[in-house]
Amino acid sequence: MKAAVLFKTGEPLQIIDGIKVPTLTKGQVHVRVIYSGLCHSQVMEVKGGRGEDKYLPHLLGHEGVGIVESIGEGVTKVQPGDKVIIGWIKGEGLDAPGGKYPHKDYLINSGSATTLTDQTIVAENRLVKLPSGFPEKLAILLGCALPTGLGLVLNELKPEKHKTIAIFGLGGIGMSALLAAKLSNPTSLIAIDVNEDKLKLAKQFGATHCINSSTCDPVQEIYRLTEQTGVDYSLEAGGTTTTIEQAFESVRDGGGQCIFASHPSNELKIQLEPHAFHRGKYIRGSWGGGSQPDKDIPLFADMYFKGDLNLEPLISKEYTLDGINEAIDDLENQKIVRALITL
Amino acid sequence: MKAAVLFKTGEPLQIIDGIKVPTLTKGQVHVRVIYSGLCHSQVMEVKGGRGEDKYLPHLLGHEGVGIVESIGEGVTKVQPGDKVIIGWIKGEGLDAPGGKYPHKDYLINSGSATTLTDQTIVAENRLVKLPSGFPEKLAILLGCALPTGLGLVLNELKPEKHKTIAIFGLGGIGMSALLAAKLSNPTSLIAIDVNEDKLKLAKQFGATHCINSSTCDPVQEIYRLTEQTGVDYSLEAGGTTTTIEQAFESVRDGGGQCIFASHPSNELKIQLEPHAFHRGKYIRGSWGGGSQPDKDIPLFADMYFKGDLNLEPLISKEYTLDGINEAIDDLENQKIVRALITL
Ligand SMILES: [Zn+2]
Ligand SMILES: [Zn+2]
Repeated sequence: MKAAVLFKTGEPLQIIDGIKVPTLTKGQVHVRVIYSGLCHSQVMEVKGGRGEDKYLPHLLGHEGVGIVESIGEGVTKVQPGDKVIIGWIKGEGLDAPGGKYPHKDYLINSGSATTLTDQTIVAENRLVKLPSGFPEKLAILLGCALPTGLGLVLNELKPEKHKTIAIFGLGGIGMSALLAAKLSNPTSLIAIDVNEDKLKLAKQFGATHCINSSTCDPVQEIYRLTEQTGVDYSLEAGGTTTTIEQAFESVRDGGGQCIFASHPSNELKIQLEPHAFHRGKYIRGSWGGGSQPDKDIPLFADMYFKGDLNLEPLISKEYTLDGINEAIDDLENQKIVRALITL
Repeated sequence: MKAAVLFKTGEPLQIIDGIKVPTLTKGQVHVRVIYSGLCHSQVMEVKGGRGEDKYLPHLLGHEGVGIVESIGEGVTKVQPGDKVIIGWIKGEGLDAPGGKYPHKDYLINSGSATTLTDQTIVAENRLVKLPSGFPEKLAILLGCALPTGLGLVLNELKPEKHKTIAIFGLGGIGMSALLAAKLSNPTSLIAIDVNEDKLKLAKQFGATHCINSSTCDPVQEIYRLTEQTGVDYSLEAGGTTTTIEQAFESVRDGGGQCIFASHPSNELKIQLEPHAFHRGKYIRGSWGGGSQPDKDIPLFADMYFKGDLNLEPLISKEYTLDGINEAIDDLENQKIVRALITL
């Protein structure tokens, strides 16, 4: 098998061929990967924002689509030949460690869901069957971006209709959140990012206002757009402590709610004004959009089939596995919403 | 009339006699004050923790008990001769500005509820009739500490029975919160303060564990006491950003809830770990314990009459108005729970 391997934090991934596929143990499934996605979690892992990495060398990627090759003991959820979505959020089925892949005289580690490889050993509970008729390329979004971004709105925030909503950060999660937020018919839907192309796409997705936060203070701009009250809801997926702080500051006193999805580097803290809490601003974090993959992925697929979710524009660019480091750079430099890696 | 007046932030209050009582305007009530309480809000005002003070010179105090002398236009809630509780939380009735008291060639300002004076002009909506039979000295607690501290638990947090609860800061609000928390039969009720006398009182009030945070890290100690899980709930009334941060860190992942009452100095921020939110810790602020004085004060009085609230020990020490600066120092130096000022 061929995979992108992280040998040292801060260095590019290496493409290694000839890795051996280990024998399956209980709860594991061997999948041939067709496509993988790429998100900021991998950028953080490669760049070292998650602290010391004890699992080097290891495989990466936590959203993908593939075909089941074989199943380990106890697996009943999928059968060889099934098309499956691989994602990081735990669902039904057995939990199991990822594969330890022999190569030369060492082992390559991996988590319970790994996708930047043409073959992977995945835990049963990180797999969901691909809903029939759902496009394979878009299916990578069902592994991370959609459950997190749609779930953020539909499972966790549950906005009332006709409110004002701001979305910070228009990557895969932010754009998915925007698509879901639009369904609540907000009176204002304000999109914030530093990239003009993403802001244009947000407009196309139904944002009523776009703020380029590289050219102005987005909090001030939001207060200006809302007659100095702030928004009812803010959703944050901008990736930094600053965007979380801005999202909190942007909600109104007396009940404004901020929910954030970003996982900034481990050592960083968010700095919040205590009085803002007393004035009735609320903030909470999201864990995978509160999604239960087995329940939610079919629902999200149905929303797509009904035409509620215009997902095609979320895949900004396709790369081969050999182009993985370019994809990581493009994502880190905010050039793309979501990368598709063909395996 | 005689009152404690703040002329300059950072300087002691001056006791001024011979101040004139202005004519009542719409919604105002003239009250002869019997007792006033004193809380950290006044300490902050005197010491300047609320930023620039635009109302100098002005009167202070926002919890007290007195007798109505006369009522202004439109006032129907109280009549001359009624014993009343004065508090800062808005209730039913007309809103009105506080009095502007003439003295020599200047005016002394005041807010809508002012109590460190033997006579005061109060807005109708900051008054509630004293429940019949309720001790006058304890009644000052119904103006701030009890609605805030009991309300924090009974109106806002609403803890489930048989959970673990930590209380940071054992002033009037923290002690009241402890009394209310005890009613939920917690399996552990952990009290944290820097003062041994207050910790002893907390034990007497039903705390199962006491932590002196001047001699250890209270967060570590709470994790030790809870088999490294953290508590289900934390209530904070310690007055600093540190106690708020500690209270947040002390709640368990996966649903632990922190609620804080403290208003640290305006320029300070609390620093929180974003991942703690993703792991399912929650934090929110309290505004006066979510209390509605007209509904809650009679309820809290009934709890006292039923023997559920042992309030007497909360009044640590009595002072005259001439001793107000000593009382402020004692409160600032964590020597007392609540001061009673006799007028
Ligand atoms: Zn992801
Ligand atoms: Zn107070």
